Amino acid sequence: MSFPDAAAAEAAFYVAFRELDITRMKRVWLDSADASCIHPGGDLLQGANAVLASWAKMFRNAQVPQVTHRLLQVSSDHHLAVHTVEENVSSDSGQRSARILVTNVYAQRDGGWHMLAHHASLPLVESRQKQAEPSSLH
Amino acid sequence: MSFPDAAAAEAAFYVAFRELDITRMKRVWLDSADASCIHPGGDLLQGANAVLASWAKMFRNAQVPQVTHRLLQVSSDHHLAVHTVEENVSSDSGQRSARILVTNVYAQRDGGWHMLAHHASLPLVESRQKQAEPSSLH
Repeated sequence: MSFPDAAAAEAAFYVAFRELDITRMKRVWLDSADASCIHPGGDLLQGANAVLASWAKMFRNAQVPQVTHRLLQVSSDHHLAVHTVEENVSSDSGQRSARILVTNVYAQRDGGWHMLAHHASLPLVESRQKQAEPSSLH
Repeated sequence: MSFPDAAAAEAAFYVAFRELDITRMKRVWLDSADASCIHPGGDLLQGANAVLASWAKMFRNAQVPQVTHRLLQVSSDHHLAVHTVEENVSSDSGQRSARILVTNVYAQRDGGWHMLAHHASLPLVESRQKQAEPSSLH
């Protein structure tokens, strides 16, 4: 099963995330060694197996979270699309919440779209008014 | 000035970074409101002006760093390319160093390539042997 466009793949990704549905999550990802995922503060996971194992483990340990997302920017080509997304994830009945910045990459292969990469990070310095202070190293 | 391909734009990006050369960095980036940058632990910067101001500020405050990078994965289309890169950045004569995971996005407009987005994050849990432990929220 594939998706007609990157937006449809992204919608399915966030439904899977909200519902802790690993079966649906598997359908979202490109079944390829090229698939890659970086969770917030995490290392690079390469290959669909490693990526999906990380989501499966997370889903087993998690309470159903509240996940909202906002698409901030889209760049797309015939077979590749990049979405910049802001996620708000809360759990423990809203006791803990996090704003997460994400680069989602989608690829079209054999006529259908899948998620190719997910790079998520936590902005440690909240700075919506003034621009973020980059770290001294980067 | 533009670059003949994404690899050339990336090479120039890392030369600019190593040499704290804001003039060269300006040439690397797409001069567009679509340009975006997330420094490690930073918030989303949108638009070439905000992005370049962040690099200029960093370059003013920094000692010349040692920056090496390793291209881990490439996905490319006619007008869009996504590179997964591992950076090693050290400063203070090697006293401080960081491994940084980066998603670099390049776009072709008017025949030439520029950097469109740079999303960098610090893996807080080093886990090259076993796969990274995702945070409980994501």
